[in-house]
Formats: sequence, structure tokens, C-alpha cells
Amino acid sequence: MRNILLKIQYDGSRYKGFQRLKEEMTIQSKIEAVLSKMTDGEILICASGRTDMGVHAYGQVANFKTNSNMSTTKMKKYLKEYLPEDIVVFEVREVDERFHSRYNAKSKTYLYKIDNNTFQSPFYRKYATYIASKLDVELMKEASEAFLGEHDFTAFCSAKSKKKSNVRKIYSINIKEENGFINIYIDGNGFLYNMVRIMVSALIDAGMGKINKSDIEKMLESKERKCETASAKGLYLYRVMY
Amino acid sequence: MRNILLKIQYDGSRYKGFQRLKEEMTIQSKIEAVLSKMTDGEILICASGRTDMGVHAYGQVANFKTNSNMSTTKMKKYLKEYLPEDIVVFEVREVDERFHSRYNAKSKTYLYKIDNNTFQSPFYRKYATYIASKLDVELMKEASEAFLGEHDFTAFCSAKSKKKSNVRKIYSINIKEENGFINIYIDGNGFLYNMVRIMVSALIDAGMGKINKSDIEKMLESKERKCETASAKGLYLYRVMY
Repeated sequence: MRNILLKIQYDGSRYKGFQRLKEEMTIQSKIEAVLSKMTDGEILICASGRTDMGVHAYGQVANFKTNSNMSTTKMKKYLKEYLPEDIVVFEVREVDERFHSRYNAKSKTYLYKIDNNTFQSPFYRKYATYIASKLDVELMKEASEAFLGEHDFTAFCSAKSKKKSNVRKIYSINIKEENGFINIYIDGNGFLYNMVRIMVSALIDAGMGKINKSDIEKMLESKERKCETASAKGLYLYRVMY
Repeated sequence: MRNILLKIQYDGSRYKGFQRLKEEMTIQSKIEAVLSKMTDGEILICASGRTDMGVHAYGQVANFKTNSNMSTTKMKKYLKEYLPEDIVVFEVREVDERFHSRYNAKSKTYLYKIDNNTFQSPFYRKYATYIASKLDVELMKEASEAFLGEHDFTAFCSAKSKKKSNVRKIYSINIKEENGFINIYIDGNGFLYNMVRIMVSALIDAGMGKINKSDIEKMLESKERKCETASAKGLYLYRVMY
């Protein structure tokens, strides 16, 4: 059987998240429906991870197995024709049969976009979280250092998270300000449920001067959840590295 | 009576254009409904000009007369509370009673946004026009010079345009490329119906090497319409100067 890799961009606004549900309105369901029609069989895709309702992706990665001998160029064209405009498969490539988009992921980068202008942009209302108080990016950068390296992230994940271990490693956090938007890139070896959104909430508090690096260090040690969850609509699965 | 100026940003995607129609789904209707409720009277706003279905604005300007003694700060808050998120009144200011947002406009700038990446961004599908062939920005800049200054724009407006004179003056055209997007800023003393979209269509042809500056000069002289109309969704009323 052939193993086909897909790289996907999507605007998550209209969907109930990535993962297949009984109902149709998930990104996975939409892609599987088109692939199944294309190959005249039942295709199930496996992605690097799910994304929640309203979360977007610049570079989700998925793969699927098929007996079809259709060329990857033709597959890409077919997907472009039948998928809605808010789901774009920008790369289709045949990979080694052992490749698994979830198990083989070495690191993931998430982007969180904050609209910090004097008023909320109507063009980014679904693509960024609006924060009215002016955030101090230098304070955010300072505080973000507390997350770097290996930590138990129990204090920064949802109680719904049921992983065996809550230890994860953060490789880098880059915070860039441009035209009143603040883009936070978080790169790590894995992320727990809601982890990025809770970390971002802490960084927003830091940008308001409410907490600092040492407060975050104490939160990590305490393993007690204190911070809120930042809104889904500012979050993007930015890149998956293998 | 007080004369109140409004500066407005809007995402035109959901609307049938700016101008009030019998049905509710225009930007003007939405704003007038909220202002009328706010002042407990019938408010009619006058804008710098209409925008078509799907066209956006970064800085539309409008004004209205009222006997209300509500402060402009309170008005701004009220508008924020009752307008949908895709219409943002970001400035409310009392102006001289003689100020008229249409008659007093000295110049207008339109922005046209082209997505010229290798695939169409799902995030800009309503906010830019996608052109798959790689455009040569230098050729576009060269060709754009033909439009500068005063010309009869009969060849670059819709047959529906019914102005006494089709002579308009273009002050500047700035074309900037960033992250695979091409932003065209056109500043002039006035614009005929569909004029910007037809000019942009000519510039896209120029970017593909199909026509050049001298072809556009000939089109202007001929007064015969040759170019298509670029899609509405890439167009923004960017700024109005008084």
C-alpha cells in the first residue's frame, strides 16, 4: 500500500475542530470525504494531532494509506477542486510506508496571534485574540523564559488532559510585535490539552505586569492550575517537524 | 444641530455594499439603525462614497446631524456595543456644522490586495484576490505610471457610470510586495464606478507581461473599455483626506 503525506492549511472558524466526529463539520471529516470519493474507497487519515474548535493551522501534517495509483499531482488537484476554500492541502507527497504523522513528529510549533491595537480589527476578529490593554512585549519575553526547557506542565494544562506524564520540553518561544499585533511562536516536543492557550494566558498577564518569570516558575513547581485559557481563535498549529 | 464625524472600518464580506437599501444587510443600514436607536430619532448618515458588495474599508468617513447631547465618547461605546464585530467605528468626533464627508473630500486612497503565493491562503480568501501566475512587480510599477496625473478615465470605468465628466486626477500609485502579497495603493481626487478594479486588472495584465505603460496610455486616449474588472474582495477604501 502507498503511504501519502498531506500538508494542510485551514481556517478553523467554521469547524468543530480537526478530529472526525459523527457529524460532518470537522476538518478531518471534510478531507476524508473527499479522499474517499477520490479513491472510491474508505480513506482514514492520521494527523500529527487534533486541533480544537476555532483553532487554525498553517502547517498541519497528516498521512493515509491507499491502493490507488493516482499520481500525487492529480490528488492535489482533486483536493483543490472538491475541498472548501477554508481547507487547503498545499502539499501531497508519497512517503516511506513506515512514516506516521503523529508518532514520528519530533517537534511542533504553535503560533498565537494577539491583536493589541487601539481597537479590534474587523479583519482579524476570527484570526487573533483582541487585548485592549497595551501589553509590554519585553515583560512577556522575560517571563516566557520560565517555560524553556523540560518541565512538568500540570499547572498549564486542562484537567481533561489524561496523559501518563505531563512532562514536556519547550525548545524556544519567540515573541514578535508588528503593526500592533503580537505573534507568539512556541516550539516544543509535545503539548498537553490546552497547554499553549494556558501558557499564552500567563504571558498576557506578564505583559500587563501582573505576574513575572519567577511567578511562572513557582506555578510550574506547584503543579496547580492558576491561569485562564486564552481564546481558541488566536491559535494556529504552525509547523510540525520530523 | 451638532454635526458628528465617524471613521469606520468594515469587513464587507457579509454585506450588500455600503449604501442603504430597503433590506437591512448594508453597512449604512446597520450603522443608521444603531444611531437611530441611540438617539431615539431617525438618523441618516452621509458617507464619503459608497463601496460595492464585498468591498472593505480601513477608513471610511461619514457624518450625521443630531440634536442629541450625548458625549462622543459615549456614542463610541454605544456603537461598539451594538454594532456587529465586522463594522468598527473607531473614531467619533464633533465637527463644524458645514463639514460634509462627501463634498469636502480632497482625496481618497484605495488599497487593492493580491494574494500571489504558490497557493491561496485560506485566511485571505475574503480579503485578497488570488492570482496564481507570478506577477512581476517591477513591470506593474512601470505600467502604473501611465495612470498618474489628470486623464479621462472613460476606458477605465463601468458603462454604468453616469458622471458629467470622466476626468480624474491620480496623485500616486504605490505597489508593495510582502510575504507573497502585493498591495496596490491608489490615491486620487475622485474615482468613477469600478475605476480602481479596472485599473488593477490592467496592472495585473502588466505584471503578467501582457501589456505595458504605452498600452495603457493608448487605452486612456482611446476611451474604449478593454480591461476586465478585478474582484471586489481585494478592494479596500483605505483613507479619505479633507
